[in-house]
Amino acid sequence: MSVEPVLIAGAWRAAHATTKFRAVNPLNGESGPDEYPVSARADVDAALAAGAAAADALLDVPAVTRAEFLDALAERIEARADEIASTAHEETALAYEPRLRNVELPRTAGQLRQAAAAVRDGSWVMATIDTKAGIRSRFGPLGGAVAVFGPNNFPLAFNGVSGGDFAAAIAAGNPVIAKAHTSHPATSRLLAEEAFEAVRAVGLPDATVQMLYRTAHADGEYLVSHPLVGATGYTGARSTGLVLKAAADWAGKPIYLELSSINPVFILPGALRERAADIAAEYVTSVLMGAGQFCTNPGVVVLVAGRATDAFVADVKQRFVDTAPGPLLNEGVATKLAESVAALRAGGVEVLTGGRRVDGGGCRFENTLLRASGSAFLENPEGLQREAFGNAGLVVVASDAEEAVAVSRVFEGNLTGSVYSHRGGDDDALYARIARHVRRRVGRLINDKMPTGVAVSAAMNHGGPFPATGHPGFTAVGIPASIRRFAMLECYDGVRDARLPPELRDANPGGKLWRSIDGEWSRADVVR
Amino acid sequence: MSVEPVLIAGAWRAAHATTKFRAVNPLNGESGPDEYPVSARADVDAALAAGAAAADALLDVPAVTRAEFLDALAERIEARADEIASTAHEETALAYEPRLRNVELPRTAGQLRQAAAAVRDGSWVMATIDTKAGIRSRFGPLGGAVAVFGPNNFPLAFNGVSGGDFAAAIAAGNPVIAKAHTSHPATSRLLAEEAFEAVRAVGLPDATVQMLYRTAHADGEYLVSHPLVGATGYTGARSTGLVLKAAADWAGKPIYLELSSINPVFILPGALRERAADIAAEYVTSVLMGAGQFCTNPGVVVLVAGRATDAFVADVKQRFVDTAPGPLLNEGVATKLAESVAALRAGGVEVLTGGRRVDGGGCRFENTLLRASGSAFLENPEGLQREAFGNAGLVVVASDAEEAVAVSRVFEGNLTGSVYSHRGGDDDALYARIARHVRRRVGRLINDKMPTGVAVSAAMNHGGPFPATGHPGFTAVGIPASIRRFAMLECYDGVRDARLPPELRDANPGGKLWRSIDGEWSRADVVR
Repeated sequence: MSVEPVLIAGAWRAAHATTKFRAVNPLNGESGPDEYPVSARADVDAALAAGAAAADALLDVPAVTRAEFLDALAERIEARADEIASTAHEETALAYEPRLRNVELPRTAGQLRQAAAAVRDGSWVMATIDTKAGIRSRFGPLGGAVAVFGPNNFPLAFNGVSGGDFAAAIAAGNPVIAKAHTSHPATSRLLAEEAFEAVRAVGLPDATVQMLYRTAHADGEYLVSHPLVGATGYTGARSTGLVLKAAADWAGKPIYLELSSINPVFILPGALRERAADIAAEYVTSVLMGAGQFCTNPGVVVLVAGRATDAFVADVKQRFVDTAPGPLLNEGVATKLAESVAALRAGGVEVLTGGRRVDGGGCRFENTLLRASGSAFLENPEGLQREAFGNAGLVVVASDAEEAVAVSRVFEGNLTGSVYSHRGGDDDALYARIARHVRRRVGRLINDKMPTGVAVSAAMNHGGPFPATGHPGFTAVGIPASIRRFAMLECYDGVRDARLPPELRDANPGGKLWRSIDGEWSRADVVR
Repeated sequence: MSVEPVLIAGAWRAAHATTKFRAVNPLNGESGPDEYPVSARADVDAALAAGAAAADALLDVPAVTRAEFLDALAERIEARADEIASTAHEETALAYEPRLRNVELPRTAGQLRQAAAAVRDGSWVMATIDTKAGIRSRFGPLGGAVAVFGPNNFPLAFNGVSGGDFAAAIAAGNPVIAKAHTSHPATSRLLAEEAFEAVRAVGLPDATVQMLYRTAHADGEYLVSHPLVGATGYTGARSTGLVLKAAADWAGKPIYLELSSINPVFILPGALRERAADIAAEYVTSVLMGAGQFCTNPGVVVLVAGRATDAFVADVKQRFVDTAPGPLLNEGVATKLAESVAALRAGGVEVLTGGRRVDGGGCRFENTLLRASGSAFLENPEGLQREAFGNAGLVVVASDAEEAVAVSRVFEGNLTGSVYSHRGGDDDALYARIARHVRRRVGRLINDKMPTGVAVSAAMNHGGPFPATGHPGFTAVGIPASIRRFAMLECYDGVRDARLPPELRDANPGGKLWRSIDGEWSRADVVR
């Protein structure tokens, strides 16, 4: 069987391959039938050159064509939904239904359509007009392709060729060079096929969408730091992400990272008194769902010592025991999870239940509940904040409220932080003390809810301070803000009206665009 | 005479000094009377700790107090304007009048007042409310002090303790650790005195404003990469800026840079035919003003070969000869300018006039006009884009329009790019071809004007792609956008109304705040 082709410069063509690989079905350990190439640098160079040419060509394409593309891709993904979801299931062991077919695939299509709507509306460009000074600005495309590296845990909604970063980069007017995740190449191929067909159907430049399956690490660094790249979006492991960040930073190329996060959850005494069983159920659902393989998985729960806490922990432990462990994405996840649990144990964490690989039936690990004292956490905050990606959770029991506040001050940057508090106000004083510290350390501060479930909302921040991401001001989810990551600020000073981009001309294009005119948001034309 | 104290943790106190320095009056080469400390790491550590405590304390201070501070500082600077401007004149040789006293100082006060108005208004936080999902977001402070490094060429308007980055960082709710520029310590001391008095007068935390005069380079890197720093703003030389960027990037700390820029100006044939003398006059004023020591100095002019261009160059040359060279900021500027001119000559650039130090009368350099062919520029684009900071300008003469277009494609990132074109439309086709390439390489695209003069406008972009800055999406000038650099995106998910920051509560605070509610910009309350 021949090696699968890559999508470069408007054609599916044979890769310059240094070697090849196969996908592995995590449920039975069997390799798939197809071989995929590990591209040599020549493929990266070809994609960069074609991407730069496409970026230039896109300047002449009306924005509405990008919207048509995004809508067309959503429709094509839906039309091929069964095949895409079943392929993703074979490659990731994530449930065909409801997860992939009924949740993640519709979410993927929905994100693409939201991005299309944002392109049609145009308000994402933040058109700003100073009529007195004759100066106007908006966000516009970067002038080079955006490299998108998708993660292992969302084969559709964060895939480099169909996911959130992809949609945002295209919406901003950039071509995309997608790097498929090695653990789901066939899924990525199906999505890229649909994306490329959609490109052709609506008439975008052929190289608007390109895809490589894999490169050497050095070629990944080469890609994100190349003069012809516009920017990079990366979702995945911290170690790889930081290597790419260093390469991109050195070259002055924007890179947006979504790295590991342990998403602390504080359960205050009043809330526990009020609704311990409900919170335990919510927590167990959230931490074990999808075998815990979510960026926003609640990795650490902080409680204040006492009988109610002991009972809560016992309840959670029983639920862990009673729940069948779900399959992990691949051998690598199982290996790393075992390593993390071992490292946490070495750091003084107690294993309440679980802690071992499950034999047979694919890559599975026992549902693992860990416990540490607040003082142990405070003594070794770096070590005990190690992410255990998968179906494991750490409970930190602070000796008293004061120690819980101290714990809230040592978290590094996370995507989310949750605080459960008493509905009647009994926890308000402690809430205020803890929330102020959590607030500065997370992108999304949550009340009375678990962090899993990331709404695609304009108000969402799926981001947060380093090392959860590379910059505290950007979100990977939520339109229009996610689009502006892949844009530059374009200022026009004394530029004649006909030479301005449509959003900045006197006449409001379509009459629906929100613009800031002399400090007032408006949909009106500019009157001079 | 004792060494001047530094402003740390709410007191003017003796520095932990490794050594000391004096300011030099560039007009007579004489050292000033006062000695300033080069702070040891202990001072940096003390400032960082106090800054972090102040950042925390600022969370409890109403936003209006920051506005009162910014207004009070503007007033105090105006009240001491003569002394501040004359001190700055002695330290920089910039003209007392009109430059310092009548232009830069009022601009400085104006920026502070604009920042105050933005704080009072609150719209800079981009409050975004999704009533259906129960998710709300805004920009908020970083949780650590912002380090601000001011440049040599704007001792007031970009000073670390009074300038644009300072005002933006404070407006966003952060304390500032200012690093005074070594060439104007007394000016910085006066400004810091007023800032500290204003801090006390309005009741901000004492360490909201701190200032060090100088540190070892390694301690600068330590400062910008420290866990307790919130972010950094740096304006100055590229070499130092890139060292600080590497340190900050490694630690995942945001850093905003404004580095060198040569600000290409294209003068198209029709414009030259139409108004050559006017453009020559504008150019000479812009390139020699303040001895050319502006970030937006027009360092390179591109023309198409022909008789009109020869006449234009001859006219400009005569104007260079006829204009007395202005004083440079210090010996270092003069030395670097000589080095840059020598390097450009070695790269094949012809010196039409100037090129030498002027003996006596402070640090002066002959007004220097350089010329290169388009082909020479295209053969060595990196070498010929070397910035010659000061009163020097390079004219690139392209053999034809095609070569001018080719030149427009090789510029690296710049703050500005200007295109002069025929008023009647004769240049429109060439404008379109050149402007599309210039557009992607600059922050501000200008028509029919020189780049000097940076309006403090909401639509301004005083920024641009690397290496003019570190990120193409941010501006150093222009409120409210410059404020958001020093902020994090705060998302609130299911958070009770009374726990939200005022901008995100149902009731619009003051009724004047612009918020995006379910996709519509509005000043209304949220109705649920």
